[in-house]
Amino acid sequence: MISNKVINEAAFRIKDRIHHTPIFTSQYLNKLSGVSLHFKCENFQKTGSFKARGALNSVWQLSDKQKAAGVATHSSGNHGQALAWAAQQQNIKAFIVMPENAPAVKVEAVKGYGATVVFCESTLQGREQALAEVQQKTGAIFIPPYNFENTIAGQATCALEVFKELPMIDTLLCPVGGGGLLAGSALSAHFSAKQLEVWGCEPELASDAHASFKTGELQAAMPPITVADGLRTSLGPINFGYIKQFARGILLCSEEEIKAAQQLIWQRLKIVVEPSSAVPLACILKNPQHFKGKEVAVIITGGNVDFRTETGG
Amino acid sequence: MISNKVINEAAFRIKDRIHHTPIFTSQYLNKLSGVSLHFKCENFQKTGSFKARGALNSVWQLSDKQKAAGVATHSSGNHGQALAWAAQQQNIKAFIVMPENAPAVKVEAVKGYGATVVFCESTLQGREQALAEVQQKTGAIFIPPYNFENTIAGQATCALEVFKELPMIDTLLCPVGGGGLLAGSALSAHFSAKQLEVWGCEPELASDAHASFKTGELQAAMPPITVADGLRTSLGPINFGYIKQFARGILLCSEEEIKAAQQLIWQRLKIVVEPSSAVPLACILKNPQHFKGKEVAVIITGGNVDFRTETGG
Repeated sequence: MISNKVINEAAFRIKDRIHHTPIFTSQYLNKLSGVSLHFKCENFQKTGSFKARGALNSVWQLSDKQKAAGVATHSSGNHGQALAWAAQQQNIKAFIVMPENAPAVKVEAVKGYGATVVFCESTLQGREQALAEVQQKTGAIFIPPYNFENTIAGQATCALEVFKELPMIDTLLCPVGGGGLLAGSALSAHFSAKQLEVWGCEPELASDAHASFKTGELQAAMPPITVADGLRTSLGPINFGYIKQFARGILLCSEEEIKAAQQLIWQRLKIVVEPSSAVPLACILKNPQHFKGKEVAVIITGGNVDFRTETGG
Repeated sequence: MISNKVINEAAFRIKDRIHHTPIFTSQYLNKLSGVSLHFKCENFQKTGSFKARGALNSVWQLSDKQKAAGVATHSSGNHGQALAWAAQQQNIKAFIVMPENAPAVKVEAVKGYGATVVFCESTLQGREQALAEVQQKTGAIFIPPYNFENTIAGQATCALEVFKELPMIDTLLCPVGGGGLLAGSALSAHFSAKQLEVWGCEPELASDAHASFKTGELQAAMPPITVADGLRTSLGPINFGYIKQFARGILLCSEEEIKAAQQLIWQRLKIVVEPSSAVPLACILKNPQHFKGKEVAVIITGGNVDFRTETGG
């Protein structure tokens, strides 16, 4: 099991290379929800998402021999950018397997960090096959997007910053896709904020974490069709182990509720967030009775939006 | 003339009621422009724009008798919201004359602050007539959007914050519409940062400030058609007096350049800004040689965008 020491070491390892992101509030959203909301803005993080934390924590712990071979991963976008960036920080090669339908802005960003992009079919099988081929050809070390303890420990550092800055909060919400951020946040709370409840938030159209939590057994992923493109991945078994033990539960919301929450965040917080980031606010607005009168932290996970498809401009 | 003391008094008067907004940077935009850019994010200001400063400074100086009558103004949006909010802070009535084609989000925001909205034709004449009628009917005190010394002194406090936080900057850019922010910024630099150059930035389609600066005489406004809706107003004569004396010049950019700069800001800074806010970056990217190697502050003036018309969503 990932220890408190491992998480604190990750925090120390990455702290000078990542942004200590700000926490925003909105009187309008507090009034609308009846909840005192604190938004931890990881959209302002390096590479535009919290994924920079786990990628950096993972790359920094490679041996010199491993670094010489380079790193590889498959990712619908944010982990790919994060790994490409983390590799660039160490001047090592990165090979990023991306689905053909990945947003152009994410593909370009990965290339911008000097990585090699390898396209694949937009299925888990297609990704894994392409990754295996890359590894075989290059010898690169696979850095998993979420189902990996070094990644989880890195993502755990985000909640740690929240607890230090806001000791009065009693609930933390974050989206759950592969489950790295939720597992890390729940672990951080277990060690550093024991009274605090950590909830995962998920689209109804990608509710494998909800089904897994309810049944106690890892359930198969659903077709990757939710607008929250960062949450189309399936829950990882390592992550699920931590989530089952330390998270309070999983909340669901509809596609329309995600879009409405995203628009509220853009309009009221004046920040650019991707649809995945809006899932927790959507769940709060759907279940205000769960959180009424509480001090609630929400992790805004990322801000990588492809405006060319979003606005038609 | 507005004195240094008047500006410092305005800063003291409003400081506990407004946000001390953050200053953002982007390595990508620095590299793209060849300029070290510092974005003062007034999109995060109360009411979503710097206009909260001038409105609050004006309302706070009314006599009790004036406050009993309430306040009124005409505004394409941001000053209307700001005045409605400032009036609400003092529990006084506000009547806001708005053009029929004002963005719905701005109309709703004004109403949300408890003000009464009076619609008028989208011409200066239409606005002035409607305002005169409101004043006659209600006795409300007119608080001008820009051509007013209390407004200018309030807007001047924004640059003051920049100079205190970033003593090393040598250039400041802001958009110019009515000219309150540019006049205030140039005045602040004159008193508090003498070596610093202040430039106004304007759309080619609304270049009355550029023409006025060039000829030394106030020139008539152009048809209000630029995408930068906050800059469709005509330059005020009081503001022009200060601009002529203390600003370094006016830069121009095209509509396409404004849209491209707005998209860059959304995508790279992850903040929501209205088109007017993108005009300075558009001017920098058009004239990089003016600013190469310099430390440049840019005032991001506001983030009030109507997403229902922008995205069709």
